[in-house]
Amino acid sequence: MTRSAGIDVGGTKFLGVVLDETGAVVDTRRRATPAGGDAVVRELAEFAAELAPYDTLGVGVPGLVTRTGVLRAAPNLVGSDEVAIGARLEALLGHPVAVENDATCAMIAEWQHGAAKGFDDVVLITLGTGIGGGLVMGGRLQRGTNGFAGELGHMVVQPDGPFCVCGRRGCWERFASGRGLQMLAGGRAGEDVVASARAGDRESQVIIDTFGHWVALGLANLTNILDPACIVLGGGLASAPEVFLPPIEREFKALLYSSDNRPLPLLTFAALGERAGAIGAALLPASLTVL
Amino acid sequence: MTRSAGIDVGGTKFLGVVLDETGAVVDTRRRATPAGGDAVVRELAEFAAELAPYDTLGVGVPGLVTRTGVLRAAPNLVGSDEVAIGARLEALLGHPVAVENDATCAMIAEWQHGAAKGFDDVVLITLGTGIGGGLVMGGRLQRGTNGFAGELGHMVVQPDGPFCVCGRRGCWERFASGRGLQMLAGGRAGEDVVASARAGDRESQVIIDTFGHWVALGLANLTNILDPACIVLGGGLASAPEVFLPPIEREFKALLYSSDNRPLPLLTFAALGERAGAIGAALLPASLTVL
Repeated sequence: MTRSAGIDVGGTKFLGVVLDETGAVVDTRRRATPAGGDAVVRELAEFAAELAPYDTLGVGVPGLVTRTGVLRAAPNLVGSDEVAIGARLEALLGHPVAVENDATCAMIAEWQHGAAKGFDDVVLITLGTGIGGGLVMGGRLQRGTNGFAGELGHMVVQPDGPFCVCGRRGCWERFASGRGLQMLAGGRAGEDVVASARAGDRESQVIIDTFGHWVALGLANLTNILDPACIVLGGGLASAPEVFLPPIEREFKALLYSSDNRPLPLLTFAALGERAGAIGAALLPASLTVL
Repeated sequence: MTRSAGIDVGGTKFLGVVLDETGAVVDTRRRATPAGGDAVVRELAEFAAELAPYDTLGVGVPGLVTRTGVLRAAPNLVGSDEVAIGARLEALLGHPVAVENDATCAMIAEWQHGAAKGFDDVVLITLGTGIGGGLVMGGRLQRGTNGFAGELGHMVVQPDGPFCVCGRRGCWERFASGRGLQMLAGGRAGEDVVASARAGDRESQVIIDTFGHWVALGLANLTNILDPACIVLGGGLASAPEVFLPPIEREFKALLYSSDNRPLPLLTFAALGERAGAIGAALLPASLTVL
């Protein structure tokens, strides 16, 4: 029996799964994320041992990941820039380890077993603290020439807008992420705005509508560029689809180029929940072989 | 000997070429574009007969083209919306005709025989009156689920910006096309601004720099999304690379996410000139077979 292990390295926790050969999750484990690149690598090796036995191991990490498994520019993993996670884990564990961006891992999972199953052209967008993304085009996972494809959140949509954590101004994630919702709500927590909107509060609904406009603006841009059949919305905001979807769909149609002359892509929400990244990490070694 | 014929349907002229089996152009012809979809189809059939004998025929048209060769939303071809160009030409000519967006055709040509030869991840951008585009990812031409991928010009980069011909506000082509350059120059013709900048006029150089900023902003967005190895700039503005490239390169590095942590894509200019679209149209039937 083949067992595929996957670990999703988040800013606060490691989430590990083991899949059987049908893709079913047969084990799930968690551990707090330590501080610093050295500790992350060491504890990842320990955590992998807890998931053993397995035949293949994949790891998803937040940030730019080179095609050789070096983590670059990982603002949510303190002290982990320029860590050769892949090579160092392989040395500690004595077997191959596939490493990819966490949103790309979530894309693989949703494409093979979740909301985007059966589609050849897919964009996955994780709307969390920031915005991450993954792309499938022409029936294949697309990683880009350096492995950095899918940094959707740093698409500039308002050049004179507020500063982003990346140092530039008006990035999409400044408006359309969880942090963006909080900004649009004048500092109120996103969950609070959602709860008020559900309870019928008019002002909160206006905030959600404005937020939906910004989400839709980015989705329309991506559709103009990529013409996907399906857009999967994941991350924390996927927990309230009935609140977010109506304004996003309305604005999306208004903002998409020539929307009267084309079928609209399916806008849907991630199906695999918080384990999508870990499941995709487990599927990663097989996905990369196919490439 | 195999002869591949290709026709690029422009707003003002048809440009036709015939390639031999090495890809060399052995015939080039021109004809004025007539008004109206019916006349376009009829005269395309006549024009194809002038290019005969040939073994395959491809046609590039400006606008959204479905995967079955129906032209939609073609603002630069008066009265040609919803024309089934592919099927109608096939009926008139009695043989298969491949039809694609003109910028996608230029992409094929530059990828197979021009500036992007040998690269697996390429974005081509035609900076003409508007902006068109074509994508190669993972070593394959990407057309999107409907055939509409690459509508790069309608990426919104300034939501409260000036209105675009498409009815939306702040599309990239409103700033970064030939028409955009003219707007930034307060109505002066783009050629005039280029000539003045070349002659050392400071004010014209400032306009070119501002224009370069807008071009770079879109290129940075596309690089964040797609991580290409190579970006090819085509269209009319490719005629003055030494004027446009320095400000574009400077601003591109400033606007690209995490540009210190990654190799920059090669920014280069189209190599095949005004015949790129027709050459790509000629290469189209073979390209689509490979898909």
